[in-house]
Amino acid sequence: MDKLIEAIKATQNPSVVGLDPTDQVVPAALIDSFREEVADQVDDPAEIPAMQRAVAYFEFNRAIIDAIAGIVPAVKPQIAMYEALGPAGVDTYEMTCEYAQSQGLYVLGDVKRGDIGSTAAAYAKHLGGLAANNGEALDLWHEDAVTVNPYLGTDGITPFVDAAQAADKDMFVLVRTSNPSSKEIQELELADGTRLYERVADLVEGWGADTIGASGYSRVGAVVGATHPEQGKQLRERMPHTFFLVPGYGAQGGTAADVAGMFDEQGSGAIVNSSRGIIGAWRKNGGYSDGMSADDMLGLVASSARDAALAMRDDLEAALA
Amino acid sequence: MDKLIEAIKATQNPSVVGLDPTDQVVPAALIDSFREEVADQVDDPAEIPAMQRAVAYFEFNRAIIDAIAGIVPAVKPQIAMYEALGPAGVDTYEMTCEYAQSQGLYVLGDVKRGDIGSTAAAYAKHLGGLAANNGEALDLWHEDAVTVNPYLGTDGITPFVDAAQAADKDMFVLVRTSNPSSKEIQELELADGTRLYERVADLVEGWGADTIGASGYSRVGAVVGATHPEQGKQLRERMPHTFFLVPGYGAQGGTAADVAGMFDEQGSGAIVNSSRGIIGAWRKNGGYSDGMSADDMLGLVASSARDAALAMRDDLEAALA
Repeated sequence: MDKLIEAIKATQNPSVVGLDPTDQVVPAALIDSFREEVADQVDDPAEIPAMQRAVAYFEFNRAIIDAIAGIVPAVKPQIAMYEALGPAGVDTYEMTCEYAQSQGLYVLGDVKRGDIGSTAAAYAKHLGGLAANNGEALDLWHEDAVTVNPYLGTDGITPFVDAAQAADKDMFVLVRTSNPSSKEIQELELADGTRLYERVADLVEGWGADTIGASGYSRVGAVVGATHPEQGKQLRERMPHTFFLVPGYGAQGGTAADVAGMFDEQGSGAIVNSSRGIIGAWRKNGGYSDGMSADDMLGLVASSARDAALAMRDDLEAALA
Repeated sequence: MDKLIEAIKATQNPSVVGLDPTDQVVPAALIDSFREEVADQVDDPAEIPAMQRAVAYFEFNRAIIDAIAGIVPAVKPQIAMYEALGPAGVDTYEMTCEYAQSQGLYVLGDVKRGDIGSTAAAYAKHLGGLAANNGEALDLWHEDAVTVNPYLGTDGITPFVDAAQAADKDMFVLVRTSNPSSKEIQELELADGTRLYERVADLVEGWGADTIGASGYSRVGAVVGATHPEQGKQLRERMPHTFFLVPGYGAQGGTAADVAGMFDEQGSGAIVNSSRGIIGAWRKNGGYSDGMSADDMLGLVASSARDAALAMRDDLEAALA
């Protein structure tokens, strides 16, 4: 986790921007602007809706990446938003990861994969793939970390830990997610009085034990939602070597005060995600009109995202002071 | 689930073939045979290892699909094996699904997705995607069902149920997976004496309640590993409207006797998966040599898979008699 922690120090900003393009945050006129270009390229007109979004979402992401590089240490593309476009969207996901890395950002691939051991080993290639002809591992996805689901247990986790260690990368395991229904399973009380998410937390701390870096944190982080401030504070004590990825700030209701307890005494130990609050900030700026040029729209998206990212940095800084 | 159950009746065979290509089951000489063709097409030589596998895995799958169509009702491509090749592999996954459907097979996409509500809605587009220009939902992935992880709770599940209902498709939620470490979490005893997987089972039965078809089974199935015969038998009673996808037969150790208790009294209620036992059957046939032509190799792969699929059908039939 040392690489991420260094990047946070360099920007003095423990936040990550979720690159989750959807038709709700990408201007409709931007998507439409690629219609003709795409129509000329596809064989089957049925491919147009997915392809024009695949192109528009990448341009949208690139404008945001350019605007926030140097201000935030990391981005977190959510692969679900890209898979929603079919395989063409998955290309955009990979291109987004590669472009973000090229601009110096740490890329946290929010893929929430998880499976039995032999299958998990295939998913772990997200962190370091096939051998090239010179024997070097190829980086097929350009992610610096991925998120992983714990429901399968240790043998579904170990391949990711091994891949992270081999490639100097990281992973974050779901412990206490930000959504309302997560309590149905994650808060279940066990026979010994602990809650399920606490048991998962203990497993996560153990899974990372052999990978603790100079920062004191292991390569196996935890996802802990901003919507559970008290539980997050307790987990911070329970998991002293586990870095937290904290979703749920902003649009989902979590505040800077809610996440403050998830940081350690040095103000490290966590990175807070905001997606819609940053990439959809343009919608609250009032400067948009459907008649704008694609370049003007991207300019508005970018400047709004930059302002929102700076405001989030200041909001977190004040709460952590 | 009625469509799957009809397909099982038509073939008199409650088994599904896992299309999980890896370098362990796809002949090395087949992969090598595409090297020159691929090298001519890519800009960057580093892309060759992934691209030649993407091509070889599809040809491998096609040979198997042609050999087993009409004998088995369904295939289950495991997307992890394709993601291991990067985005090029994801294209092969989608092409495999589409080709299998075109040959009359029910396609169970083993994707094990799961996320918070708004993100789950994006993943649910696996079952029915973007609107085309005529308003019809586009089928971007060509899957008839997907597997889903329950750790996020109801709001991560509902979007899949809605999508399945809208598109006449199905889903299978992980309840008790086949791998050894699954007990660490799934078998945890809760404060009320039930086990976590039993609680998840009750949730799954509830999630499907509004989607029960003419067969008596809902659109929300459960994944129950063949490696847990006693638990599977109990779950069969606990989940009367839930169809089971049973992995773990064959290579993972489950036998036909182990899975018999997961079927209902009419011999329905479950479909049993085998992956390596079918697609890797050629390795036990002794007919392979590195000097074979690609066509001869594919012929050996296909005939071995067909024989293994027939043997599995007979094995299950005898155990269920």
